[in-house]
Amino acid sequence: MARQELTDLAVRVRAGERAALARAITLVESRRAEHRADAAALIQEVLPATGKALRVGITGVPGVGKSTLIDALGTMLIEQGERVAVLAIDPSSTRTGGAILGDKTRMANLSARREAFIRPSPSAGSLGGVAARTREAMLLAEAAGFTVIIVETVGVGQSELAVADMVDTYLALMLPGAGDELQGIKKGLLERADIIAVNKADGDAVSAARIAAAELISAVKILATDAPPEVLTVSARTGEKLAALWASIVGHRDRLASSGALDVRRREQNVVWMRDMIADGLQAYLAQYAGDALAATTDAVRSGNLAPSVGAQEILARLPR
Amino acid sequence: MARQELTDLAVRVRAGERAALARAITLVESRRAEHRADAAALIQEVLPATGKALRVGITGVPGVGKSTLIDALGTMLIEQGERVAVLAIDPSSTRTGGAILGDKTRMANLSARREAFIRPSPSAGSLGGVAARTREAMLLAEAAGFTVIIVETVGVGQSELAVADMVDTYLALMLPGAGDELQGIKKGLLERADIIAVNKADGDAVSAARIAAAELISAVKILATDAPPEVLTVSARTGEKLAALWASIVGHRDRLASSGALDVRRREQNVVWMRDMIADGLQAYLAQYAGDALAATTDAVRSGNLAPSVGAQEILARLPR
Repeated sequence: MARQELTDLAVRVRAGERAALARAITLVESRRAEHRADAAALIQEVLPATGKALRVGITGVPGVGKSTLIDALGTMLIEQGERVAVLAIDPSSTRTGGAILGDKTRMANLSARREAFIRPSPSAGSLGGVAARTREAMLLAEAAGFTVIIVETVGVGQSELAVADMVDTYLALMLPGAGDELQGIKKGLLERADIIAVNKADGDAVSAARIAAAELISAVKILATDAPPEVLTVSARTGEKLAALWASIVGHRDRLASSGALDVRRREQNVVWMRDMIADGLQAYLAQYAGDALAATTDAVRSGNLAPSVGAQEILARLPR
Repeated sequence: MARQELTDLAVRVRAGERAALARAITLVESRRAEHRADAAALIQEVLPATGKALRVGITGVPGVGKSTLIDALGTMLIEQGERVAVLAIDPSSTRTGGAILGDKTRMANLSARREAFIRPSPSAGSLGGVAARTREAMLLAEAAGFTVIIVETVGVGQSELAVADMVDTYLALMLPGAGDELQGIKKGLLERADIIAVNKADGDAVSAARIAAAELISAVKILATDAPPEVLTVSARTGEKLAALWASIVGHRDRLASSGALDVRRREQNVVWMRDMIADGLQAYLAQYAGDALAATTDAVRSGNLAPSVGAQEILARLPR
């Protein structure tokens, strides 16, 4: 892309043009080498206009009601004057055009609002790569004037940590039933969550949600040593306690900001981000020079016919010197 | 090293010569490129003589009594006819010659036995690199006829997982006081530990240790979904229940072996090992071509003067094509 064209795109993104934002995100999601250089230049152009949004991460097992919560929360925030962008991380995602419709369907109210911008996960790749591209999309959305960025974990495991590494406040959604919320504990969620909300606290499930919240409060007290997450209940479906949940999120972010911890967190997140991109670039580089040999070498090691150290040497010997 | 010299070294290692084993481990610990190739060839030579030892990992916070336990357990095993090698993993280690004395001092009884071999952590490097070199040392010790390999985590966090990725049975040591044993839970230990032992169950601490064990049994029931770890108490100082702990370790390994799970675990560990070595090699490769620029680029990103994506591009552009 010509320099002037990039500058024009940056200007249009900063003017809040949705089509320009969508095109800019498509550019940063591309893995083609020349697009990567353009994307880096574009991000550098918009960088001064970034950093002002409240960045919220949301995680939870499938079925916990993430989409319903984001739909309700986002709509509420727009009615309060915010502009809301929703991004997703799922390293296993192979979603394409059709799935964008899927994301819009599962957040029907929010997607109908012009103050909202919903973008599915970049398609499959290494977690570092997917995370790096989502961070770039976040910056572009900030430059376009979105005031709240919600990053949703669609995948499991490591992608939860990747989201924690790019947001100000990290919300873990839990189910009111026993067992499910403890699955979350197993994944190290309690260590990284800033706020834990037991969803579906409505109808017959109100008391189950309260019990789950009480159990989580105990678990948090036992397990976490410093800055234990706040635990509350919410119903994304009825909207009950949604305002309280948002107040908790804003309160957490404001405490971080006033203590100076937010600035430190974001700067360190930038370093993590750069390291993710370097790691992703190294993997692509390795794949370029040794990708064809890696599967066979892995099989030979797994079957016991090749020492792992010899396999590693063989792979590394393919890199140019 | 000439081919014949390598073969001679391999023969002497397999004959159980301590000096040859020490020299072989020094070779695999070297990060010099020509030594890496020699090390890979040496490991391939001894590979048929490996795999017969019981590989035990031991973790726990500083002060939990790991050294005392290993000293007592190792001495007990030698009296039962075993040969015991003790290796350590600590990616932050900068220990050199003097510290080997340190390791021998903290395991005074064991280090006096000719049936024991104690080796400190390889000096600092990436965790993948330290782990890969410890795995190689483990294979060399097996080839030299050691029948029990104890790999001790000296570092914290990720190094605990690295140890779990190289042993048959993973033992987490806990303190009898409240809080400390739960620090362990926080690090995801319950997910990876095969056996949890509350140490210092002696004197006035016996009842505290029993209470801690009961709490851990509850925690294990709540948190783990399959194959929860066995929980017991032990006193490394008095030797009480040391035989029971060893029986538990052997029992765990035997169950794995008879079900075929041990073979699967070790093969998958080999694949992890190869990936660690490739990742370590890639880091060394990156350092070779971009190491001088990395610190300045990281500082520029941390201070907010450079977009992380631009920094990553600049670093990756230094790799040869």
